[in-house]
Amino acid sequence: MAEPLVHTLRIRYAECDLQGVAFNAHYLNYFDTSMTELWRAAYGGYQNMLDRGVDMVLAEARLRFYRPARFDDELELAVLVTHLGRTSFRTRHRAGCAGELIAEAELRHVLVDRQTVAKTPLPDWLRDGIEPWTDTEAAQD
Amino acid sequence: MAEPLVHTLRIRYAECDLQGVAFNAHYLNYFDTSMTELWRAAYGGYQNMLDRGVDMVLAEARLRFYRPARFDDELELAVLVTHLGRTSFRTRHRAGCAGELIAEAELRHVLVDRQTVAKTPLPDWLRDGIEPWTDTEAAQD
Amino acid sequence: MAEPLVHTLRIRYAECDLQGVAFNAHYLNYFDTSMTELWRAAYGGYQNMLDRGVDMVLAEARLRFYRPARFDDELELAVLVTHLGRTSFRTRHRAGCAGELIAEAELRHVLVDRQTVAKTPLPDWLRDGIEPWTDTEAAQD
Amino acid sequence: MAEPLVHTLRIRYAECDLQGVAFNAHYLNYFDTSMTELWRAAYGGYQNMLDRGVDMVLAEARLRFYRPARFDDELELAVLVTHLGRTSFRTRHRAGCAGELIAEAELRHVLVDRQTVAKTPLPDWLRDGIEPWTDTEAAQD
Repeated sequence: MAEPLVHTLRIRYAECDLQGVAFNAHYLNYFDTSMTELWRAAYGGYQNMLDRGVDMVLAEARLRFYRPARFDDELELAVLVTHLGRTSFRTRHRAGCAGELIAEAELRHVLVDRQTVAKTPLPDWLRDGIEPWTDTEAAQD
Repeated sequence: MAEPLVHTLRIRYAECDLQGVAFNAHYLNYFDTSMTELWRAAYGGYQNMLDRGVDMVLAEARLRFYRPARFDDELELAVLVTHLGRTSFRTRHRAGCAGELIAEAELRHVLVDRQTVAKTPLPDWLRDGIEPWTDTEAAQD
Repeated sequence: MAEPLVHTLRIRYAECDLQGVAFNAHYLNYFDTSMTELWRAAYGGYQNMLDRGVDMVLAEARLRFYRPARFDDELELAVLVTHLGRTSFRTRHRAGCAGELIAEAELRHVLVDRQTVAKTPLPDWLRDGIEPWTDTEAAQD
Repeated sequence: MAEPLVHTLRIRYAECDLQGVAFNAHYLNYFDTSMTELWRAAYGGYQNMLDRGVDMVLAEARLRFYRPARFDDELELAVLVTHLGRTSFRTRHRAGCAGELIAEAELRHVLVDRQTVAKTPLPDWLRDGIEPWTDTEAAQD
């Protein structure tokens, strides 16, 4: 069973709102940094994917917010690939802080040709590269 | 049947990414401006809600991205209340540009006491105020 | 004597920080929207400049913050060109709200070739286009 | 002679613009993370300053941009206190990447009473705490 890829980041002052907590929109940005780290682990970096002629765009996102996180909190961000389709893939994201679950997300990205921005099938190198962080069983809850 | 509340905003240079399109995380921010406009239409402004002792926090979001929008595009943002629960409510959001559907979202906000940040029932004035933009039939697709 | 070009924008919830005021970094973004509006007034839009093969990059910025602006405040943003050099130009920016001066900035942008990103002289069409909003006397205070 | 306090951060995808480089407004945000790290080193964290009844607001900023930084670049951010006045202080910031100077800034913050937001003199504990990263000679170039 695959383990999620985990990295951490600190919540910045500018990301916190009048309620004193990280504003919701920043979580899509935080989860995007997890994709960057996944691409680094799997392919040596996002640029390497671009150099092979493909890029990805977000098609769908589902987010749940459980508890607020605050300025200077260190978020632990975990990502796991839960589905590899023909031209798209799904990831599950968790943001935690000090042992508490802060937020979760499921994202669906579509792979596109870098020039035409048209949907393109996932190449084998892409499937193989993220295999260590792929657990298609995890999609079912 | 209620009509959605509509306002427009221009996509800023800083909101566009390497792909030349508005980055996905900004849409949660754009839809949040629709909440601000809804609160202005319903209660004279967000501050008036705070002054009555309640605030709201985002609990859930579902987003679908259909087409990219670009720098300097004028987005038309529409919001409709689709469900009023005991302590939470749902809104449906559409972002369009030049007649094309760009993105959609469903948001669930929870009403909280402004001091304790604990869940609190929707007061009558809040239900009454947003009634003109509430269509609970719209929740069903 | 040239008049500054003025437009307005509303401060968004996500732009306000723990102190309840628009966070300082957003002002560079606000003033950038003034550049977008200036380019629209002068050339029909930023894209038209790109289509003519040039782009601009920020080389220097000086900002002074006088008073805080708050969520949902309507900022009045004024921009005036104060210097046209060989390859760069300066603009002066003011952000006001309800008759009060909130912040000021002086920006120096460098014109670059869109492909090579090397400095390039300001073409005549660029000088002519912004002439109505250019007051080189204004540079001296 | 004091050494600057240094930390690093990676440039996020969402922070890069159509030109493929980190957008200028984000640098004020990056330099603000240096203030957070300085406060952590000097006082154990920004919250500790708040707990002692003071806060700070940015009054002036001067930025110079030398070279672009790109998505996924690791920025090295250095901060040095260059002046301690009665109610305000100045910091100098450098952002570098792979041995190249990317941008510099000088910031002037004003210390304020946390409740009234009125200017307040720098307390001795604040002067003492940042002393290891203070070099008032450095202000003179």
